[in-house]
Amino acid sequence: MANQDNAKKLAGEASLRHIENGMTIGLGSGSTVYWMMRRLGQYVQEGLDVKGIASSRQTENWAKEFGVPLTNFHETQHIDITIDGADEVDEAWNLIKGGGGALVREKVIADAADKFVIIIDESKLVSHLGDFRLPVEILPFGWEVTAERIAGLGGVSALRQGAEGAFVSDNGNYIVDCDFGAINDPKLLHQHLKQLTGVVETGLFVSMADDVIAGYADEAKSLKE
Amino acid sequence: MANQDNAKKLAGEASLRHIENGMTIGLGSGSTVYWMMRRLGQYVQEGLDVKGIASSRQTENWAKEFGVPLTNFHETQHIDITIDGADEVDEAWNLIKGGGGALVREKVIADAADKFVIIIDESKLVSHLGDFRLPVEILPFGWEVTAERIAGLGGVSALRQGAEGAFVSDNGNYIVDCDFGAINDPKLLHQHLKQLTGVVETGLFVSMADDVIAGYADEAKSLKE
Repeated sequence: MANQDNAKKLAGEASLRHIENGMTIGLGSGSTVYWMMRRLGQYVQEGLDVKGIASSRQTENWAKEFGVPLTNFHETQHIDITIDGADEVDEAWNLIKGGGGALVREKVIADAADKFVIIIDESKLVSHLGDFRLPVEILPFGWEVTAERIAGLGGVSALRQGAEGAFVSDNGNYIVDCDFGAINDPKLLHQHLKQLTGVVETGLFVSMADDVIAGYADEAKSLKE
Repeated sequence: MANQDNAKKLAGEASLRHIENGMTIGLGSGSTVYWMMRRLGQYVQEGLDVKGIASSRQTENWAKEFGVPLTNFHETQHIDITIDGADEVDEAWNLIKGGGGALVREKVIADAADKFVIIIDESKLVSHLGDFRLPVEILPFGWEVTAERIAGLGGVSALRQGAEGAFVSDNGNYIVDCDFGAINDPKLLHQHLKQLTGVVETGLFVSMADDVIAGYADEAKSLKE
């Protein structure tokens, strides 16, 4: 297994030390979450009693594959813990997310959770956010105007492409990937972007993470420790 | 014709004095816009050269019915004037919109326009906003949590119902109709709501209107005059 994959696996599996019987778990998306879900499925087969709320169709499919029971916001509005990956994590644990295109639902399950735990390989740790282009989910209607408004805030944006034309999120929206250079004030940038008409959500997760578990070549460490 | 219908007709038709050859017009939604569109169609048949961008499927259908040529944001990102109705208009020309369910696209075309003209019958004029319940468009995923967050801001909300279960907007989202009592600071309330994860847009249009044309039993008056 490549070093980065192993680091992801170690971080994903280490996050399960936070799981207790009876919990409702917000299930993030992406390749590090994949490893968490695979191990979680084993625990469930061994008798662990938990339910998950999935943030993407892919995660839903993994839950079915690994035998993790699912619930939804109709049944419960309370999540004990959400475990998710990130594209960048700065020193204050602010995040850029959305490389996989599920940022809105990921933010909904993070926001609804008592505890929000980030699992990453060490390559995602940065001194400041912004090398990774910031994903922003916007409405298809008038997206050209919305992209202009984002440019007005200093962000050069590109409409994300999918297999057939523009990429469409699970919510039926578009995503623009925005280059703001180094992001000095993630909170303010998020607020300004979110206020724009046509912007549904941004990939900036500010002051939300309660723990970050980073995977290295042969171990995983909580940054809390 | 009932007095209120006549007042809508007078206001809708009076707004066309703002239209000039070559303009791109943002076409709002609702019963007062209907009358504007009907007369606009006549002008087009008589040789007026304009194009419209429709804010709803209903308005698109009216444009086809009345012969108003349509364009879209792919062809142009610039709107000369947007003409739309409102559910409430306060003394500072702040608006509540969204009774018809098209608030997001209405705000997109208002935001993209050089000039934003409101057409209403006099019953929509109020001293303060809030008797009409504020429509807020939210994502279906986790809407129950989003409604709780809105309640946290002081708004009792009800999920709008359609013919078959929850009403679904043209953008594929839900609408909650929220009772905040009298809205003393529409700008602040909009900002707080728009910041919530899961909120796509609110029906508060603050400091956006450039003119309000109010229809009465036998005349229409610009409130500018």
